[in-house]
Amino acid sequence: MTTTTVQFLFDFGSLNAYLSHKMIPQIEARTGATFEYVPILLGGLFKLANNRSPMEAYAGIPNKLAYEHVEIDRFVRRHGLTAFKWNPFFPVNTLQIMRGAVAAQTLGCYPAYVDVVFAALWEREKNMGDPEVAAAELQGAGLDAEALLAAMQDATVKGRLLANTQEVHARGAFGSPTFFVGDEMFFGKDRLGDVEEEIRGESLRAARAH
Amino acid sequence: MTTTTVQFLFDFGSLNAYLSHKMIPQIEARTGATFEYVPILLGGLFKLANNRSPMEAYAGIPNKLAYEHVEIDRFVRRHGLTAFKWNPFFPVNTLQIMRGAVAAQTLGCYPAYVDVVFAALWEREKNMGDPEVAAAELQGAGLDAEALLAAMQDATVKGRLLANTQEVHARGAFGSPTFFVGDEMFFGKDRLGDVEEEIRGESLRAARAH
Repeated sequence: MTTTTVQFLFDFGSLNAYLSHKMIPQIEARTGATFEYVPILLGGLFKLANNRSPMEAYAGIPNKLAYEHVEIDRFVRRHGLTAFKWNPFFPVNTLQIMRGAVAAQTLGCYPAYVDVVFAALWEREKNMGDPEVAAAELQGAGLDAEALLAAMQDATVKGRLLANTQEVHARGAFGSPTFFVGDEMFFGKDRLGDVEEEIRGESLRAARAH
Repeated sequence: MTTTTVQFLFDFGSLNAYLSHKMIPQIEARTGATFEYVPILLGGLFKLANNRSPMEAYAGIPNKLAYEHVEIDRFVRRHGLTAFKWNPFFPVNTLQIMRGAVAAQTLGCYPAYVDVVFAALWEREKNMGDPEVAAAELQGAGLDAEALLAAMQDATVKGRLLANTQEVHARGAFGSPTFFVGDEMFFGKDRLGDVEEEIRGESLRAARAH
């Protein structure tokens, strides 16, 4: 077992981040590593990196877009992610709920917040870009929606999300999900096997160094 | 072991097709499957599919382009592909050497031709878009360069390459390397593990059907 910490850069609006989120507990259990969830604003990262979402980039390439869906279906089936549903409101503006993730870190409800928002978007077909819907979902899950929504307007919270996004861009990121094991960057849910291999490698190197 | 045939759609100009080519013998040995090499013209497929090469698509996205290189380096290192060298003439026009692949199928030297051309491009830094260079490489490897170069001008050969390209586009392809196991399509060298899993699944289903 290892004490490695993996940084997981995510935006709730990224389906592939949701699919990764569902796999992370198993990887933590197998390796002993801890995944640190780093909230970023994907739209902001796209602007900084001059990148676009796969759905936008492949919109004019019908075969590629169709294949992207095939690969999502395969991943969902292979890993038995039976709760997954396409969100009818996609793409959802995630600015407020990503600020909420930063707020939840200081309000002491971060893991629950992340679970609730990912599930609302990718299992319960909720329009989490709508503050009223978001408030109802958070409240319904037993979180302090009022405190969370208020904190989304906090300048420190806004600044932290922006700073996270700028920092990961400076480290080489261009999309979500992105993983860092030390300085090694991995992009996409399809690299989770490589992330796990890298964790084991780090762990071996650490053991040898002792 | 299985008798499954996998179709491997390739263009010599695709580095990821070369990297896949180097892994195929091991997959054949492990599974008993046969990979049928289907020559296509990648430039033509891109036009049909409205797609572009990764190098072109990522040219304006520096972080993504850098990551693409990191992933190639990782693949090369992980699989010990020590002969690989970046080709200084890249991108090379592959129209003639892809026609040559079709010609080699009828001239009875297909596997040797494929090996020689992939190696010339991705191990020996040759400008295989230049007919004189191509002729020298083929001749040097003991192939009948004169017959091959003559056959590249054959209307049937030209038509076959075009037909292959149109057929794979109609089946859903948009780039190289693409693999078909039955009707299941897989794109990219990073799907080779999934291709192998699909071969094993096919083989199990065939065994149960008997």
